[in-house]
Amino acid sequence: MSFSEHFPIYSKLSAREQEILSSSAVLRTASRGTLIHNGALDCLGLILVRSGQLRAYFTSDEGKEITLYRLFDRDICMLTASCVMSSIQFEIMITAEKDTQFWIVPPYVYKKLMEQSAVVANYTNELMATRLTDVMWVMEQVLWKSFDRRLAQFLLQEQEVEGTSVLKLTHEVIASHLGTAREVVTRMLKYFQTEGIVRLTRGTVELTDLAGLQRLESP
Amino acid sequence: MSFSEHFPIYSKLSAREQEILSSSAVLRTASRGTLIHNGALDCLGLILVRSGQLRAYFTSDEGKEITLYRLFDRDICMLTASCVMSSIQFEIMITAEKDTQFWIVPPYVYKKLMEQSAVVANYTNELMATRLTDVMWVMEQVLWKSFDRRLAQFLLQEQEVEGTSVLKLTHEVIASHLGTAREVVTRMLKYFQTEGIVRLTRGTVELTDLAGLQRLESP
Repeated sequence: MSFSEHFPIYSKLSAREQEILSSSAVLRTASRGTLIHNGALDCLGLILVRSGQLRAYFTSDEGKEITLYRLFDRDICMLTASCVMSSIQFEIMITAEKDTQFWIVPPYVYKKLMEQSAVVANYTNELMATRLTDVMWVMEQVLWKSFDRRLAQFLLQEQEVEGTSVLKLTHEVIASHLGTAREVVTRMLKYFQTEGIVRLTRGTVELTDLAGLQRLESP
Repeated sequence: MSFSEHFPIYSKLSAREQEILSSSAVLRTASRGTLIHNGALDCLGLILVRSGQLRAYFTSDEGKEITLYRLFDRDICMLTASCVMSSIQFEIMITAEKDTQFWIVPPYVYKKLMEQSAVVANYTNELMATRLTDVMWVMEQVLWKSFDRRLAQFLLQEQEVEGTSVLKLTHEVIASHLGTAREVVTRMLKYFQTEGIVRLTRGTVELTDLAGLQRLESP
């Protein structure tokens, strides 16, 4: 599959714009665990995922993390091109959660296209709105939802993404996704285990009662 | 002051675009306390503040609130025109914090301009990025900052906005801004009072030690 088949609005662009995009996009590979974008230190450009899975998150001064959104096949992220938009005044990090192939469109190539083309600019608006929606969702969870509910929701999502009920996840990793401390995760998982909802072994969480998790998720 | 003098990119628009915007913008007045945008029930259009002060916030199912950002003279909000952008999938509320005059550009007028003009679309991108930055900032506070620090920060901001150290604020109102319960606010304010940082009377919080608040704000 080529760039042109993955880029959502490719067919709406002029031949010249298509040419600029295709010729400047660079295909890259990141193996699982690689940090591919590091906040304000980077202005990587626009990312378009070909295959794999990326995680966008942000961190506190003390290194705590919370997951903001994930990128799958055909997903685009342009917050990694923050240097082209002066009003983006925050920092996100992106790592590969699986071995991932993705294209990068250099920031200033994209900026120029965006400035000249209403189609590209409007598409970028939709991308921004999508990310804003993601972030509002996370904030809603953090602010108003109790932690048992958030944890149940997270485990069910992981099960869907991974296609298995045996999740290879340390408590540390779960804590990073949910913006809390490892101890808090361990305590709640142990409670889930006594309720028969999960079974814990070293490095894995097995979901043994999906219906129970779903009841927790939306009481 | 007219619409054309307030709208930031007015001079960059074509005569035809200027004409469309100016003729469709409607000046409205909202007295202090008026709800002017009510989440998904409304698609008011783009708001441009002429004078006064608006507060954008979002609420939980149970009616708890947290302030996302405020709009002052010349500020624009286009999340109140969410029906023109399919990727905006969240709801915000806006109320007037002071008697406010503002223009409304009808949603479909703005949508059409945005689709046709790269200048308008790119400007809208900057607006979206500004709101995303605001929301990320709030999330950072909520996630990583201790409540004494957030409260100190809020009181100092209010002092700056209002231009006085005697703030007319109930504990209930402060709780709504910070997404917490009234009891939590009352407890912390009483602690601040015993530290000599504030003086509490019915319906007011007087800041008696600004340096002390500043030390709390950035320890």
